[in-house]
Amino acid sequence: MSEVVVTERTRVCRGRKKARYDRETIYSILDEAYVCNIGVNIDGQAVVQPSSHWRVGDELMLHGSVKNGLFQAILRGETACITVCLLDGLVFARSAFNHSVNFRSVVLYGKGRLVEDAAEKQAALAAMIDRYSAGRSNDVRPPSDTEMKATAVFAFAIEEVSAKVRTGGPSEKPEDLSLDVWAGVKPVATLIGELIPDLPLTADSAP
Amino acid sequence: MSEVVVTERTRVCRGRKKARYDRETIYSILDEAYVCNIGVNIDGQAVVQPSSHWRVGDELMLHGSVKNGLFQAILRGETACITVCLLDGLVFARSAFNHSVNFRSVVLYGKGRLVEDAAEKQAALAAMIDRYSAGRSNDVRPPSDTEMKATAVFAFAIEEVSAKVRTGGPSEKPEDLSLDVWAGVKPVATLIGELIPDLPLTADSAP
Repeated sequence: MSEVVVTERTRVCRGRKKARYDRETIYSILDEAYVCNIGVNIDGQAVVQPSSHWRVGDELMLHGSVKNGLFQAILRGETACITVCLLDGLVFARSAFNHSVNFRSVVLYGKGRLVEDAAEKQAALAAMIDRYSAGRSNDVRPPSDTEMKATAVFAFAIEEVSAKVRTGGPSEKPEDLSLDVWAGVKPVATLIGELIPDLPLTADSAP
Repeated sequence: MSEVVVTERTRVCRGRKKARYDRETIYSILDEAYVCNIGVNIDGQAVVQPSSHWRVGDELMLHGSVKNGLFQAILRGETACITVCLLDGLVFARSAFNHSVNFRSVVLYGKGRLVEDAAEKQAALAAMIDRYSAGRSNDVRPPSDTEMKATAVFAFAIEEVSAKVRTGGPSEKPEDLSLDVWAGVKPVATLIGELIPDLPLTADSAP
């Protein structure tokens, strides 16, 4: 896949060897992560909120209450800075300084486009549901008009964006390698468990 | 433990029932999470970076390269907005609108205090190492003077802060409960695997 255009804001300055600008890497990180962080300048203060995101083609999607202050700022045209970070490992070195983590992160800058077209908005929200369980949007009760109005959906072009990836073991000075200290990587993984079914009728019928 | 003082910035507006202002909850979330996100206003733009954090008493600690633009802004006195989010579950409802996630998050505002005292800085960095493996700071090669100078450590008072916690199954309209759609929670957990030892001498001695 193609590379994105690197701008002053997205050029990785610290740890340049970890920088990735290809869409394949960027999209795979965005698609794997369940949590993003959205930062917006509100009255001169950076305000950051964790949220969930999903991708539709070449756009990163966010949704939330139309009353949310952060979304109001995006609506006013503030450029958001959206980050995603997957932690892959704890890297133990023989020297304190060279301890690190293996990770895959994305930082994206962009102005949010409010998705107003009803069909596009419905398709976007369906894609979010289907991300967590394929085809589920066809099974659940679709949003009512009131629910649709309460939800804002924003699309961000995946253009001004960069990824940063660290893999592998500790990077150490040659003279540290002979130190008698254990070293290596403890892998970190996010696991999703089996469904714990919701049984409201049992609770409702309790004495 | 005591509650923190709630300010306009930290009062939870959306989903007030999920708000937590007690230090026990806030500290437990900060102590469990490996990744935070730091947001700072730089030239009118919110800039967010994933990082790792740790806690020393009533302060949240960050470290990084002294050359990092975000840390430079903190040094200039910009108030940072630091977030942490633990994902605990995917919540599947019978209606599209009521899908949710179980999570525990913290949002903290504060100005960073540059840790300049050598003994305090050493103790703080040792605490970070020990967080990942108890007592390890005594075993590894300690930082050299050059390494100490290259690393900035910032302490943020855990004062202007709030937590938000969602637990439990889907919250649905009574009329949706009888829909023939599976619903419930898939738990999400972050797991740390066994050490994959670093064996650099084997690699070095390869032909």
